[in-house]
Amino acid sequence: MPRLVMKFGGTSVANMDRIRNVARHVARERAAGFDVAVVVSAMSGKTNELVGWCQDAAKIFDPREYDVVVSSGEQVTAGLLAMTLVGQGIPARSWLGWQIPILTTSAHGSARIDEIDGTSLVDGFSRGEVAVIAGFQGLDPETRSVTTLGRGGSDTSAVAIAAAVKADRCDIYTDVDGVYTTDPRIVPKARRLDRIAFEEMLEMASLGAKVLQVRSVELAMTHKVKTFVRSSFDDPDFPQPGTLMCDEEDIVEQPIVTGIAFARDEAQITLKRVADRPGVAAAVFMPLAEANINVDMIVQVASDDGRTTDMTFTVPGVEFERAKAILIKAQSEIAFESLHGASDVVKISAIGVGMRSHAGVAARAFRALADKGINIRAITTSEIKFSVLIDSAYTELAVRTLHSLYGLDQG
Amino acid sequence: MPRLVMKFGGTSVANMDRIRNVARHVARERAAGFDVAVVVSAMSGKTNELVGWCQDAAKIFDPREYDVVVSSGEQVTAGLLAMTLVGQGIPARSWLGWQIPILTTSAHGSARIDEIDGTSLVDGFSRGEVAVIAGFQGLDPETRSVTTLGRGGSDTSAVAIAAAVKADRCDIYTDVDGVYTTDPRIVPKARRLDRIAFEEMLEMASLGAKVLQVRSVELAMTHKVKTFVRSSFDDPDFPQPGTLMCDEEDIVEQPIVTGIAFARDEAQITLKRVADRPGVAAAVFMPLAEANINVDMIVQVASDDGRTTDMTFTVPGVEFERAKAILIKAQSEIAFESLHGASDVVKISAIGVGMRSHAGVAARAFRALADKGINIRAITTSEIKFSVLIDSAYTELAVRTLHSLYGLDQG
Repeated sequence: MPRLVMKFGGTSVANMDRIRNVARHVARERAAGFDVAVVVSAMSGKTNELVGWCQDAAKIFDPREYDVVVSSGEQVTAGLLAMTLVGQGIPARSWLGWQIPILTTSAHGSARIDEIDGTSLVDGFSRGEVAVIAGFQGLDPETRSVTTLGRGGSDTSAVAIAAAVKADRCDIYTDVDGVYTTDPRIVPKARRLDRIAFEEMLEMASLGAKVLQVRSVELAMTHKVKTFVRSSFDDPDFPQPGTLMCDEEDIVEQPIVTGIAFARDEAQITLKRVADRPGVAAAVFMPLAEANINVDMIVQVASDDGRTTDMTFTVPGVEFERAKAILIKAQSEIAFESLHGASDVVKISAIGVGMRSHAGVAARAFRALADKGINIRAITTSEIKFSVLIDSAYTELAVRTLHSLYGLDQG
Repeated sequence: MPRLVMKFGGTSVANMDRIRNVARHVARERAAGFDVAVVVSAMSGKTNELVGWCQDAAKIFDPREYDVVVSSGEQVTAGLLAMTLVGQGIPARSWLGWQIPILTTSAHGSARIDEIDGTSLVDGFSRGEVAVIAGFQGLDPETRSVTTLGRGGSDTSAVAIAAAVKADRCDIYTDVDGVYTTDPRIVPKARRLDRIAFEEMLEMASLGAKVLQVRSVELAMTHKVKTFVRSSFDDPDFPQPGTLMCDEEDIVEQPIVTGIAFARDEAQITLKRVADRPGVAAAVFMPLAEANINVDMIVQVASDDGRTTDMTFTVPGVEFERAKAILIKAQSEIAFESLHGASDVVKISAIGVGMRSHAGVAARAFRALADKGINIRAITTSEIKFSVLIDSAYTELAVRTLHSLYGLDQG
């Protein structure tokens, strides 16, 4: 029988009514002839309740125990869904991370999946059982401790399980009906995509679109898991197909730009009049790397005095203060005149595998933004995307401008 | 180092403030030189929330999945307490049933502990770690499923772990400060006992006193675990000793009667004019046994017609309707004239190992109750206790009468 992995997030299992709705989606696919594994998140709100207790328990909480506490949320949902299915006459059993097992690294709170032995799940299929799997959790085989994969980790659980059982398809059910050309709350003319290439989805997720966890897209791409993003709020009897993540070759009419993403959680730092000498970049970025601060969008230009250089780069917004402090401390060593920072910036990106074969795609954007009076603070490009850093006040205008420019508006 | 097992119930870990209070109790005992294992229940109210969802999920819920869901409550508390201790600089780690492991039978919802390997806990002690153990749960080694021990099962977890690690003492912290001669809400003159014999505590628990789960007392008795019942609501810096469960020989001044227990969850059934022939008792009780209904307090007397017999016995209140239906169905086979039932009855018991060496203890009670105009419907006696079944309207009067009669009133 063909195999299907279905994943339902927190809002899709928020209460018993929603869980019964999930059971209807499962029953439909089973009736259609699939062996089904369902991956579930915690009921929405539950993880926050558990995290709140942890924050109350200790200022700096023990990451091992954090995982013990928060992983209980998915455990509850898995048991309740299995129970609901059994109550409706559908053979089912729940699986916790340690029971399968889903082996992970020991990085509590953000563990990576190392290995999944799908044998026990497949044995369950042969008994006609639906496997209901607690998402987001795994087992550190060294310490036999419960681990968690980080927020959104249930997406990764689902794709990894799909790869482990060689599923024919993986359906990620969310509270939206697919992947859009951009956030429809910002651009009402945004269109749902029928298909998106793995590479594009990876960039979209990395650059701010919050539909899927980045790691889950990487896994889907590596293992060629045919993955749909679709809505659990559809009538289970009349489901919509959603958006398919697939290989580039499987997309017939490939547009140049597929989507516009934006990320507000960036901050800009500029070092003015840095002494321009060999090794200066290392002097700036090594201390940040040692502090585990990711640096993005680096721009280096000659200063107005012609002898020194100005360096601009971005860091995650949450690391802004820490990054500034580290650089100020190293000021004499790096030898810069002054530091300027801004956290009211936004990174706007256009993504599309079609850029590979078209020149001047980014240049058109720079022109269009300039025409609207939007100043570009930094630019980065890669083979299939470019990003610009601008003042956050222009976010909506810039996203809408690029969305129209590349012909993504619907209707 | 001496070893101590501490157990805290649901009201003792009801919120983060209460959990911090538990951490203070643990810190005190650790400072006193003990290797400590702490067994915790779910936060009070949480188990009911989880059970409520299960009842909503399916009319007859799958017991395996029920255990997956409800065991999450103790998991959360164990993680939070371990985290709280670590946050205060006390090395600690949580242990779930499957991690130790606590091996049980496969009777989901009411599993019995088969075996506990204490090695991993003892290894933790040698690293100076407090072991924080999720109570109430275990592992069925056949299916690698989570099991639970039934309500109050955390008491049993604690005593079984104390036996497994050869603890010097087991302290059961509750919301009362020890075992009383009877329920102080009924008899304000009830006294807290400094010591109680295992056998007496077993009878008290079996006969309606709700301080400890019966199974935990059996285990303490079998493995000679020195167990205290004490209050978690004491100031952690000035703890009271509570009540010690111990061998009979360790109690110096042994009273004849130690306590008065009562159970309201009984129902009485009387079969009138049963044909008196060999095998009639089997004809009555076999069908009930086959339906898993426990029968207690059997009384058989000659009927007023002199040729037949009247049989009176009690069944658990929750089984009353089912038991009546079974007997009515077998009426022609058993050959009785009529069935009379009453659920407004109470079983009142006096317990004391001193009864072994004193005659006429029960007879004095029958007289005292008769003097108050209380009619006795049935009587059972054993070596160290006797019970009477009376109308429930007389509960308080009868308990107070016996409490005074045997010199248990304080002050």
